[in-house]
Amino acid sequence: MMTKRSPDRKKKDGVTEVEVAKPQGSEPFNPLREVMWRRPGFLIRRLTQIGQAIFFDLCKSESITPLQVGMLTALSMNPWLDQKAIGRELSLDRTTTAEVLKRLGDKGLVETRVNPDDRRSRLSVITKDGLNLINDLQESIHRSQELLIEPLSPDDRVVFMKLLAQLVDAHEKMEKQD
Amino acid sequence: MMTKRSPDRKKKDGVTEVEVAKPQGSEPFNPLREVMWRRPGFLIRRLTQIGQAIFFDLCKSESITPLQVGMLTALSMNPWLDQKAIGRELSLDRTTTAEVLKRLGDKGLVETRVNPDDRRSRLSVITKDGLNLINDLQESIHRSQELLIEPLSPDDRVVFMKLLAQLVDAHEKMEKQD
Repeated sequence: MMTKRSPDRKKKDGVTEVEVAKPQGSEPFNPLREVMWRRPGFLIRRLTQIGQAIFFDLCKSESITPLQVGMLTALSMNPWLDQKAIGRELSLDRTTTAEVLKRLGDKGLVETRVNPDDRRSRLSVITKDGLNLINDLQESIHRSQELLIEPLSPDDRVVFMKLLAQLVDAHEKMEKQD
Repeated sequence: MMTKRSPDRKKKDGVTEVEVAKPQGSEPFNPLREVMWRRPGFLIRRLTQIGQAIFFDLCKSESITPLQVGMLTALSMNPWLDQKAIGRELSLDRTTTAEVLKRLGDKGLVETRVNPDDRRSRLSVITKDGLNLINDLQESIHRSQELLIEPLSPDDRVVFMKLLAQLVDAHEKMEKQD
């Protein structure tokens, strides 16, 4: 339902096109950049890469990945989760969940056992070492998240996080309806 | 430099915390979600996953990935690029660039030859088949990008794209300074 029109948008071939503000400064003309930077998918993937680089820079001493941190965080708040629940909590597919759990197990950060109530499922628990690690990393995790959106003004950070959460939430609700 | 303060932010342990608007509706209390959804890195990674799922859904008949589409787009606009230039244009590391180029080569969508002016480097060109494919995909690519931000209001889409581009641009400029 698009009833409003603003000068920032134009209709082209019956499709609403979002015009992206060009970066400031006198950069050389780059037609590829013009095309790619109008694609939200491209920019979001780039920002994911940037976020991972910042994370690795801050947490490199621990040789741990953002996905592993997400899983340890989930297990630090929920003892004895099964693989399905972990995947659901972090929106990871089965293969990825199993792989990350295996790596955390190899490092002694997580233990996995057969579920006594359902022998077809396996439950994982964070170890004391895992808990120590995730506690030690808290400040670096927090700082890496801050650095990612720090180039925006404080007010714009709030707006960006709000719109980002709104998008992910809306898509997750649509997935559930499918 | 944070001189302004808004009620949306609070200072905690000397660290500015961005409060994320909670999703609407009466969802069960989920402490893990409360933690993870304040992390921009987590939400951006989630949105990248969602974008890939939308892309695969629309382009599945062609069995092609967003990275391959990015590379074909780059080569459709720049004939005879070397691997370094392709990686730079799409912000990909050397290994990923080489892998994606190899897959596109195997599919007959790209050809790679030794550079006659510098025998240590290799240049790639899109084939006619590659050009046909990328032209056929234009509508699906465009639609997948639209769908990704469609849950936002038209005005919010413009704001989101502006802030997203601003963030990626600022981080890229910082990387260059390092």
